[in-house]
Amino acid sequence: MDRETSLIRELTQLIPSITHRLEKDGVLPGVGDDAAVLRPSPHSEWAISTDFSLEGTHFLSGYSADSIGYKSLARATSDLAAMGAKPRYFLLALALPPGKPGKWLRQFAAGMSRAAREFDSRLVGGDISRSSSVTICVTVLGEIPVGLAILRSGARPGDLIYVTGALGAAQLGLEIILGGLSRQPSLGKLLKPHLYPKIPVALGQTLARRRIPSAMMDISDGLSTDLARLCAAGGVGAQIHAASLPTVKVPSNSLLRGIEPLALALHGGEDYGLLFTVPPKLVTCLRGIARNEQITHIGEITRGPEIALVHPDGRTAPLSAKGWSAFAQ
Amino acid sequence: MDRETSLIRELTQLIPSITHRLEKDGVLPGVGDDAAVLRPSPHSEWAISTDFSLEGTHFLSGYSADSIGYKSLARATSDLAAMGAKPRYFLLALALPPGKPGKWLRQFAAGMSRAAREFDSRLVGGDISRSSSVTICVTVLGEIPVGLAILRSGARPGDLIYVTGALGAAQLGLEIILGGLSRQPSLGKLLKPHLYPKIPVALGQTLARRRIPSAMMDISDGLSTDLARLCAAGGVGAQIHAASLPTVKVPSNSLLRGIEPLALALHGGEDYGLLFTVPPKLVTCLRGIARNEQITHIGEITRGPEIALVHPDGRTAPLSAKGWSAFAQ
Repeated sequence: MDRETSLIRELTQLIPSITHRLEKDGVLPGVGDDAAVLRPSPHSEWAISTDFSLEGTHFLSGYSADSIGYKSLARATSDLAAMGAKPRYFLLALALPPGKPGKWLRQFAAGMSRAAREFDSRLVGGDISRSSSVTICVTVLGEIPVGLAILRSGARPGDLIYVTGALGAAQLGLEIILGGLSRQPSLGKLLKPHLYPKIPVALGQTLARRRIPSAMMDISDGLSTDLARLCAAGGVGAQIHAASLPTVKVPSNSLLRGIEPLALALHGGEDYGLLFTVPPKLVTCLRGIARNEQITHIGEITRGPEIALVHPDGRTAPLSAKGWSAFAQ
Repeated sequence: MDRETSLIRELTQLIPSITHRLEKDGVLPGVGDDAAVLRPSPHSEWAISTDFSLEGTHFLSGYSADSIGYKSLARATSDLAAMGAKPRYFLLALALPPGKPGKWLRQFAAGMSRAAREFDSRLVGGDISRSSSVTICVTVLGEIPVGLAILRSGARPGDLIYVTGALGAAQLGLEIILGGLSRQPSLGKLLKPHLYPKIPVALGQTLARRRIPSAMMDISDGLSTDLARLCAAGGVGAQIHAASLPTVKVPSNSLLRGIEPLALALHGGEDYGLLFTVPPKLVTCLRGIARNEQITHIGEITRGPEIALVHPDGRTAPLSAKGWSAFAQ
């Protein structure tokens, strides 16, 4: 179990919590899924989730305020997309060093506004405070038709595994920045998946409304880590085909040498695409709705608990969770 | 307008927001009140609010993890009490330095658990991350009977102004800590209002259910600052009687010399009592429910916009907002 998961488990054992079991009390999944689902009345369900965006952890101090604003809301909204919820409202808690200029705030707000309009979500409240580094916490609320929220835990042996978008594109953008190459004109557009991730909000809702996925989550920490979480939640295993992964092309540049598309796809964080599983009998329905979307079949759910990677030569090896971890040293 | 209020105003002008006006869309007060009120169905209303607790801003690194856990949830829950809502759920976003010991986390969780049981609120989700200092963001959700949420904006000239609890007790606790006196046995119990603030959750609900207050908010930044906000929200003024304020006794200690009970009561932050206004015809009802509560009549709402302090000798002076400000230098 990774340190993050064990910390969450410890906290939920220590603090009165509502966890994965069903509750009579109007709360469904609770701690550990992408979002908690509340049922304030028999006729409505709400997904709620909260996410930090912290300077030094989630973004570097040199990033444009516009991208920080956009991505803070996008990262949190990704958890709603992963439940199949329609984003409605958000709260912004923002703490800034006292000397932060007004220009920074306006650019931050411009980026966040664009995200809010794109996701059709509205700011309803928040908190403003002072801190030594930029500290952002966004809480998002979304609406789901009763009973249609897609949890992480529903995958069954034989289900097919899919991902949306390309895998590793955001990590490649980060590597370009870390390599000091972000000002190279030819590489500029490769930064976008890292700075302005696309969130498949409409697709998440469509999949949930049609009840196609048996399990769904967003890929925030990398496929290997997030697939391990999905499998653990369902008590299953998985087999992934390396040749099927929608990898990205790494530009030829000496500073990017050693960065392998396969490693990026398996372990690169922050793509914010959807990872979902589909029972074989529903694959035809999926094809019907997925015509304009990049959806890739990458493997199958097994009895488990092993998660295996099948290489193009037929060799099979265990796939370890090596994605992003908040507590990696 | 204080820097915090102007930042909030700027953000809500820049980001698509739902502010103080009524909305058809299922959101009532929105940005600027203690909590946003959502109406997910015609039969239920939910108050939601989010609050930072940041090391160096809201607590010092030497504070016990137990008090940090307790107070993080208490501070956020205070915004629900101020709307008259019943606390139901909360989300915890917690970022820690990587080396923080497990003992710290367990004590933090123990304090937060006690608060959760006291407020009858359950953890439903959150986020765990890494940061250079302890960073906490708590989002709380509470339930309110439809139409009974008490906003800040309803005060009318002639309404009587009340506060609950003592004023300045939390600030006195902080002054004792800042003065290096926290280990003096005779002063120990005076730290409690600062480290473990009482939140009048039940009283807030009772007041709202009986529809007694015309306006209500919590006193988080000090009476002078919060009363100015309540008056600004209602477009009114106020007159406060210094002799009526429920002040605290400052212990005789040379290091506390110069700390005046009146200044503590007017400008001391973090008492988390309720500040509310009552139309004259409802004062008898208030007396009926307030027998076991410390509720003090401290003044009256005027046409305004001035906020005046009447001294015991009859002299009247303007009362400036000198409470806690996140951006005070």
